[in-house]
Amino acid sequence: MSDHVQSLISPKARIGHNVTIGHGCRIYENVELGENCVIGDCSVIGLPAGVAWAGKPLKIGAGSTIRSHAAIYAGSEFGPKLETGHHVLIREGTMAGENLRVGSHADIEGDCTFGDFCRLHSYAHVGRGSHVGHFVWLYSLTTLTNDPLPPSDLHAPVTVEDGVVVCVGVTLMPGTVLRRGCLIAAESSVSGEVPGGAVASGRPATVVSHVAFLRDLAHGRQHPWMNHFAAAYPPHAQARIQALREAILVGRDEFVRTHLTPKK
Amino acid sequence: MSDHVQSLISPKARIGHNVTIGHGCRIYENVELGENCVIGDCSVIGLPAGVAWAGKPLKIGAGSTIRSHAAIYAGSEFGPKLETGHHVLIREGTMAGENLRVGSHADIEGDCTFGDFCRLHSYAHVGRGSHVGHFVWLYSLTTLTNDPLPPSDLHAPVTVEDGVVVCVGVTLMPGTVLRRGCLIAAESSVSGEVPGGAVASGRPATVVSHVAFLRDLAHGRQHPWMNHFAAAYPPHAQARIQALREAILVGRDEFVRTHLTPKK
Amino acid sequence: MSDHVQSLISPKARIGHNVTIGHGCRIYENVELGENCVIGDCSVIGLPAGVAWAGKPLKIGAGSTIRSHAAIYAGSEFGPKLETGHHVLIREGTMAGENLRVGSHADIEGDCTFGDFCRLHSYAHVGRGSHVGHFVWLYSLTTLTNDPLPPSDLHAPVTVEDGVVVCVGVTLMPGTVLRRGCLIAAESSVSGEVPGGAVASGRPATVVSHVAFLRDLAHGRQHPWMNHFAAAYPPHAQARIQALREAILVGRDEFVRTHLTPKK
Repeated sequence: MSDHVQSLISPKARIGHNVTIGHGCRIYENVELGENCVIGDCSVIGLPAGVAWAGKPLKIGAGSTIRSHAAIYAGSEFGPKLETGHHVLIREGTMAGENLRVGSHADIEGDCTFGDFCRLHSYAHVGRGSHVGHFVWLYSLTTLTNDPLPPSDLHAPVTVEDGVVVCVGVTLMPGTVLRRGCLIAAESSVSGEVPGGAVASGRPATVVSHVAFLRDLAHGRQHPWMNHFAAAYPPHAQARIQALREAILVGRDEFVRTHLTPKK
Repeated sequence: MSDHVQSLISPKARIGHNVTIGHGCRIYENVELGENCVIGDCSVIGLPAGVAWAGKPLKIGAGSTIRSHAAIYAGSEFGPKLETGHHVLIREGTMAGENLRVGSHADIEGDCTFGDFCRLHSYAHVGRGSHVGHFVWLYSLTTLTNDPLPPSDLHAPVTVEDGVVVCVGVTLMPGTVLRRGCLIAAESSVSGEVPGGAVASGRPATVVSHVAFLRDLAHGRQHPWMNHFAAAYPPHAQARIQALREAILVGRDEFVRTHLTPKK
Repeated sequence: MSDHVQSLISPKARIGHNVTIGHGCRIYENVELGENCVIGDCSVIGLPAGVAWAGKPLKIGAGSTIRSHAAIYAGSEFGPKLETGHHVLIREGTMAGENLRVGSHADIEGDCTFGDFCRLHSYAHVGRGSHVGHFVWLYSLTTLTNDPLPPSDLHAPVTVEDGVVVCVGVTLMPGTVLRRGCLIAAESSVSGEVPGGAVASGRPATVVSHVAFLRDLAHGRQHPWMNHFAAAYPPHAQARIQALREAILVGRDEFVRTHLTPKK
């Protein structure tokens, strides 16, 4: 750990075997870092959260990589192989499964859940209280809101189910529910519930297709994305990915009848 | 002040009683911090501004909290209880009243004014020269622009009056004027002048309603937001908030006749 | 170099004459800084890139200014007078000419090229593989994407030619090509190819005019911007700017016939 000559590491922090801590970091006392973690330079790990979180630790699983200039609060738990870009903020009460990836400059406002293998790109903004399933993609500038009458004390967080893809620049309005495997086209603004497997697009977004009809014939790629992108995940995730793919496809014909057939 | 073992604090900085400075910070010489301020880790306070600002200090009022990784220039003044999120940038010539709150990753470009009790959320971007009144809300990804013919040397900054609410993802085009108490719906793009109390929406935004008609009947909340959210402010602000509420409501009937009644 | 009392500077870094390095920085070994550079506080310069970039240095030209909280990877090269705002990220494989300016909180994802004198504003996001010409403007919240079927392994980066202006909040979809001197209006979403000198606007963007028709009569300003903004560049750039202006104007009449004349 020769890097951290100018870092301030609490002697009460529980730091696993073979952890590397960069230059100019601060590790607060209520932190548990699993083995083989790497903490980038100028990162601040385990910031004290409010009184509701007093004494609750920050647990970061083995093999995680936090890139430089991170700010991560106490009161959160991450499974193994958390990976963050640079300049991320993750607030208290964030509970995440295995291998969450958080893009640079992303802002996770806390009191929220992520399943396994979620990927957030740059400037993704996850409002307090959001629930995000497994194998979800939130591309750059995705915003998950939560106040239906801003400003107010009402709280209607967003739910994003397994396998969902939210393309660049999308706003999910308060209370939005994205059902399993749907895809939101770039620059859309979404309210209400989007059915499983749907493609929704527009401001406001409407259902325009099913993901099984999204394809790039020239390159032989066709959604659901588990058809062509499963290899980006480790072997132990493959069975779950294929089960998710099948669950999305099984409802396709009924979906077409219900959502894509003109009413008589 | 035991935290700042690796901080570089100018002996010329004027630091009030009971100030806490985090790890890895730099406090430049031309800084005045009021009593009971807290400066988060890895923050840079009082960065030298250009020659036009030479010798002008950075004054931060008592009881302020600057969270980690801030970059704040000299040549600005903030009233008491400034609060910032993480990774904020505030440039020279920013003059703010009491209890400005600045969201994480926000970018205030300087040479601008804020009244009291303004709230900016994440990634809010306030262009140089903007004027923002009291009790204003700028939600995430709000952008205040200023160049009407980009790139040019023309400068048409934005004005936002008291009590205005700008919802998530809104762009205020150069020269926009938002009159007292209006509300801009999410994802709108605004030019010109929006009347007091109006609800404006769309790209380009048009007047669609009056804020007094925005309500959540199930929970008994109704705009103007001062009806249901005044308790989020301290006692000494309440009289001003109620006066602002009344000023917004007094023009409602005339507003309906002028803006919401079909022309014959 | 008295500032860097708490900085960690590799003895293998090649640091030019009269370089200033701020407080709390880290300079990795594979870095070349030209003379008269200024590195802001809490910056991390020369972060190790992946194995494909092993041994490739980070070269930053003379007279550059990197503002605080930067994260810049090895494996990139910048001409003289690079200037960055605060909290920027620049990844490996970024090749840039003279006087690139990168706005605060910007994210350059690497494996990309910039010509001379490009200006990126806050939160500009340049996806991996992008090609950007000379004298280009990318305003705040511009996003250059690259995946046409997200998520996939397909890669269709964006090309932006010389003199292009992309206004605030624009998304350039995968494979977009912006030809010389075109201008994309604020909040547009662009796919395909935009002709040289065109003004494109909307979601999806369509050609609506030629830049030569953009003017502010009250102030005597008229596009192409080289008419009124060339003075913002140094003397040795003037001949190139005027040649670019002429190249944009020479096609105007043909452009009008082709793109702006109603079909019979």
